[in-house]
Amino acid sequence: MNDTPAWLSPAEQHAWRAFIRLHQKLWATLERDLKAHKLSGADFQILVALTDTPDGRQRFQDLASTIEWEQSRLSHQIARMTKRGLVAREECAEDGRGAFVAITPAGRKIIEAAAPHHVATVRRLVIDALSDELDTFARLSNRILEQLDNEPR
Amino acid sequence: MNDTPAWLSPAEQHAWRAFIRLHQKLWATLERDLKAHKLSGADFQILVALTDTPDGRQRFQDLASTIEWEQSRLSHQIARMTKRGLVAREECAEDGRGAFVAITPAGRKIIEAAAPHHVATVRRLVIDALSDELDTFARLSNRILEQLDNEPR
Repeated sequence: MNDTPAWLSPAEQHAWRAFIRLHQKLWATLERDLKAHKLSGADFQILVALTDTPDGRQRFQDLASTIEWEQSRLSHQIARMTKRGLVAREECAEDGRGAFVAITPAGRKIIEAAAPHHVATVRRLVIDALSDELDTFARLSNRILEQLDNEPR
Repeated sequence: MNDTPAWLSPAEQHAWRAFIRLHQKLWATLERDLKAHKLSGADFQILVALTDTPDGRQRFQDLASTIEWEQSRLSHQIARMTKRGLVAREECAEDGRGAFVAITPAGRKIIEAAAPHHVATVRRLVIDALSDELDTFARLSNRILEQLDNEPR
């Protein structure tokens, strides 16, 4: 191991800064869209994960691993969403495998209202902007993800 | 205009979800790295923007436009960082063009301590993972950014 860090070259720095800027601007735009429906990005992500299941619910543990959040963060987020009536905890005494988190009718209503605008924004800003290079972008994203998945936790 | 949203196709959804996952995992990893130096991603971004200038300071307005933050958000962040001694406000009465934000020696010390590890992580997870396709990734990021820059605010 060498102690001197390998600073980024100008070309590497250019690429990395473009990606940081993309990350910041895109997420700010998407969050602003969702805010019009009184949803945060975190709310939206959880509601999507729940509506992706046939019965709109997941065990807390499974939900944490689906969205790759630490349990303590998810626990706080679910408490806030429960208070707002977007999800409900369903205890499951019989099997000892822990509680379910279920989307409520109010949660379903709000995500159904927010989704069309959100999808239209994603389509305009990302899908259409990349057009025939979307697959390349997905492949490169997956290359970084593979590296991330190999990191020690 | 058609009222029915054009939902994402399976291939589009695959690409979009890979990108969301990348965004979440990469930033969580980078934030964890910085946390070891008691810095948030936002702290780091501001300190980098200040060290990028020859004298380590920028007018508040210019800093806001460099990092593309809304003024109210930057104002809160600078107040917190001032309290922690990482930056200082330098009033500039004579020209009426507003105060400077300057990095302090303590701020410089902390970013110099954090940067080598941060750069090593960026290199390992992004630069090396993409290797000869880094330019392609930058080009595609810039395609989305162009679209974002054309959005009405």
